[in-house]
Amino acid sequence: MTDATDGTDDSFHVFDTTLRDGAQREGINLTVADKLTIARHLDDFGVGFIEGGWPGANPRDTEFFQRAREEIDFRHAQLVAFGATRKPGVRAEDDPQVAALLASGAPVVTLVAKSHDRHVELALRTTLEENLAMVRDTVSHLRARGRRVFVDCEHFFDGYAANPDYALQVVRAAHEAGADVVVLCDTNGGMLPGPLGTVVAGVLAATGARLGIHAQDDTGCAVANTLAAVDAGATHVQCTANGYGERVGNSNLFPVVAALELKYGRKVLPEGALAEMTRISHAIAEVVNLTPSTHQPYVGVSAFAHKAGLHASAIKVDPDLYQHIDPERVGNTMRMLVSDMAGRASIELKGKELGVDLGDDRELVGRVVERVKERELAGYTYEAADASFELLLRQEVEGRARRYYRVESWRAIVEDRPDGTHANEATVKLWAKGERIVATAEGNGPVNALDRALRTALGRIYPQLAGLELVDYKVRILEGRQGTGSTTRVLVSTSDGQEEWSTVGVGENVIAASWQALDDAFAYGLRRAGVEPQE
Amino acid sequence: MTDATDGTDDSFHVFDTTLRDGAQREGINLTVADKLTIARHLDDFGVGFIEGGWPGANPRDTEFFQRAREEIDFRHAQLVAFGATRKPGVRAEDDPQVAALLASGAPVVTLVAKSHDRHVELALRTTLEENLAMVRDTVSHLRARGRRVFVDCEHFFDGYAANPDYALQVVRAAHEAGADVVVLCDTNGGMLPGPLGTVVAGVLAATGARLGIHAQDDTGCAVANTLAAVDAGATHVQCTANGYGERVGNSNLFPVVAALELKYGRKVLPEGALAEMTRISHAIAEVVNLTPSTHQPYVGVSAFAHKAGLHASAIKVDPDLYQHIDPERVGNTMRMLVSDMAGRASIELKGKELGVDLGDDRELVGRVVERVKERELAGYTYEAADASFELLLRQEVEGRARRYYRVESWRAIVEDRPDGTHANEATVKLWAKGERIVATAEGNGPVNALDRALRTALGRIYPQLAGLELVDYKVRILEGRQGTGSTTRVLVSTSDGQEEWSTVGVGENVIAASWQALDDAFAYGLRRAGVEPQE
Repeated sequence: MTDATDGTDDSFHVFDTTLRDGAQREGINLTVADKLTIARHLDDFGVGFIEGGWPGANPRDTEFFQRAREEIDFRHAQLVAFGATRKPGVRAEDDPQVAALLASGAPVVTLVAKSHDRHVELALRTTLEENLAMVRDTVSHLRARGRRVFVDCEHFFDGYAANPDYALQVVRAAHEAGADVVVLCDTNGGMLPGPLGTVVAGVLAATGARLGIHAQDDTGCAVANTLAAVDAGATHVQCTANGYGERVGNSNLFPVVAALELKYGRKVLPEGALAEMTRISHAIAEVVNLTPSTHQPYVGVSAFAHKAGLHASAIKVDPDLYQHIDPERVGNTMRMLVSDMAGRASIELKGKELGVDLGDDRELVGRVVERVKERELAGYTYEAADASFELLLRQEVEGRARRYYRVESWRAIVEDRPDGTHANEATVKLWAKGERIVATAEGNGPVNALDRALRTALGRIYPQLAGLELVDYKVRILEGRQGTGSTTRVLVSTSDGQEEWSTVGVGENVIAASWQALDDAFAYGLRRAGVEPQE
Repeated sequence: MTDATDGTDDSFHVFDTTLRDGAQREGINLTVADKLTIARHLDDFGVGFIEGGWPGANPRDTEFFQRAREEIDFRHAQLVAFGATRKPGVRAEDDPQVAALLASGAPVVTLVAKSHDRHVELALRTTLEENLAMVRDTVSHLRARGRRVFVDCEHFFDGYAANPDYALQVVRAAHEAGADVVVLCDTNGGMLPGPLGTVVAGVLAATGARLGIHAQDDTGCAVANTLAAVDAGATHVQCTANGYGERVGNSNLFPVVAALELKYGRKVLPEGALAEMTRISHAIAEVVNLTPSTHQPYVGVSAFAHKAGLHASAIKVDPDLYQHIDPERVGNTMRMLVSDMAGRASIELKGKELGVDLGDDRELVGRVVERVKERELAGYTYEAADASFELLLRQEVEGRARRYYRVESWRAIVEDRPDGTHANEATVKLWAKGERIVATAEGNGPVNALDRALRTALGRIYPQLAGLELVDYKVRILEGRQGTGSTTRVLVSTSDGQEEWSTVGVGENVIAASWQALDDAFAYGLRRAGVEPQE
């Protein structure tokens, strides 16, 4: 529940529609459990309203509202049910979809209404007058039953361009019937901020209704359009986490909120919430099972990553020179990237970040730069594999690699049996502590079988390996650009329960590349545990 | 060369800096050959200026300018060399980096200059007066040698906020020394369109210099910031293909140009170029070896993809109802997505798109919807695997799957030998044309070996398989959300030299999932070739 005690109040609405409009994104497919988890994250973040779906139109959404009521104790947000105005020619009280909105138990209802004359005639197939009556009746019906009502005017901007008089009549109908906010929707996302702001200001002057904005990102301007509407007097912004939504997407909640708090100085979230933004963005991406966008403003892992040699030199002087805000304010961190474009300054800073003293050894730094260049040319990427980079760096500093074992050979077999089941078996042959060890293991896949075989082989000598867990695994096929054939790159994330680290492997096939990344992951984990090699 | 004959002229500059500033993006690492290819694409697209790099600072960039001069016959663009103003305390003619700009042979030079007093003192470590002299001297020196000069005022907006008088002095120094355009750079990307437009208008009024804009996307507003500057009188926009660039990225060339052409009605590209935009965007992504962003405005594969049941019904009536432009204008196409959120309308439209007549068989459509739901729950995705969807659809229409062979079992082995080389071997056992066939093949990886074994086994019965080529292969690990362990999804693209199709496989390991996708790819290819099953 938004209230004045946490620094926010009803004078400005942060309205999230990830669970309804965001779920329209290509590739998103939410279960009820997913929706409940996302609702919890959004409430933690402190949005004022969470639009949960369309009860009555979709059984999963009906179930969501029921379970949300029972299972979630919202601290900040109010739950909102989305639905349409009553059908033409029936009474609001007789429309089963309107009844489903009430039955959802949500204290707030968003009604979608047509405001473009052409849509009323072509899609609704009713008269302009009846459409106005539908808005009035449905709003009054819900208000009389104690619901707070917001009205989404679909295709408002196209409608206003085609028939401003009718579009304004719809806004007035909603406002006069008791809607708290009339939301102007750029449904097909074709607007630009300048013209959009002019329309919002015009509607506000003509109707006096409290206005909201719902922007889509089809011109790449959804965030700016949302802010342009606020500049013009809108006090309710509809957004989705990470900008998920149909086609290109919706206005992205995170940069909108960050701009309002950090650039406008307007408090729209509870105290401390902004610093949780990066974590919450990534957590929601996890639930919807999409890789978090690395280049998302404020929250992407690249958002404060510096690569250019020129910038790196300047950042050594003062980090504020190349950052518009302190990344800590949104829960993100500055990163120096290691890449062959990076000069010595980047490697020195990275060494410092990792706690490896490169001193003033210019020759050593030069050697590391060369080594990185050569490996990146072969397909390695150290930007995403800090642990593999640290191993490379320490090897150069110490003059040799710290080897915990020596591999003679390995083999992985995947077999599809006539009954449709699969057998995955791997064998490793290696030397450790002067001993030749041969071990075989099965797994749920060939890489998992190799991982287990390696642990079986080494477990007696390095019991610390039991504490390591492979937590993520990514495969990328690098296309051969000069007819050299393709290369496979594997990134593995490993955890010891406290820290997580990433390693990289490159090879002509996925198993060979995975093996390398595993090998680095184990070496890094053993080094981190303070284990001395027993080769 | 921009000229009036192709509808564009010097009064407005589309300036691309993909090869210089865009290359700063995390994960991008361009060879000289890559840069030449991208330059050709950008010239095809019809930008007026291509900033190729920093000759003298980077050997690859020096080589690029030399080879571009020899190898590329630009039809539209002029090549631009980027560099800094002379160093403090030396004459422009004695500065080797300035000499390298001339030696590059580029007819246009962009000079980066400091315009924020604090940066002059902290990063350049010189006086404000000397910095102005550096700008004047370097511009005059290059102008005297026949170069056209643009000056990038780094950190202009922060500088203007901190010390407007000094920031304006830098603009005037550049303008008066003969710079054609003074580019205001939002280097750390912290600006929003409203305040940015106000500053641009103020600088224009105060100096009369021709102004350009260079925006970064740290607030998610780079495109809108670029357009706000144009609204305020800037006539030169600096952008990068697909918005590549440091941290979050740069202003994205494609939505900027599309807005100017389609929303402003300003001709900034040669006739017909806009319709090549989607192709060129994807081609450049290919060269830099990044997956094209599916949700990029105008050019993403999802940019005109419709999923919502509500929208799908409306689109059956009139596609313009949910699209702000006709996708053909930017070389993209409308797509109906198949997903469990899609209702019957989507499946019917998709059937029509594929040329499969579903008639008015509501029960059949319902069965397809159920099948898709069930498979997507298991991890399949038909949105990205049209061919697998078509096989599913035809199976439901025809009442049974068309099987070309029956697999008894298969096996793949990857072996790492003591000498570091790998052996990849696969065996398939199957039945076709009443015959049991066993075939073994080697490959550069286990999936390649399986592909070859399958072709070896079937080649005699289905010689058409020889014409199919696997052109892309993607692996995604779907995280188990309810402790069920992870699932692997593989997408395979196959070509017969004319058409390309995508198939999907899901399994507990990468090899099993790949097998399924291959199996679908072969079935689709044989069906497409008009082959009858010989099971």
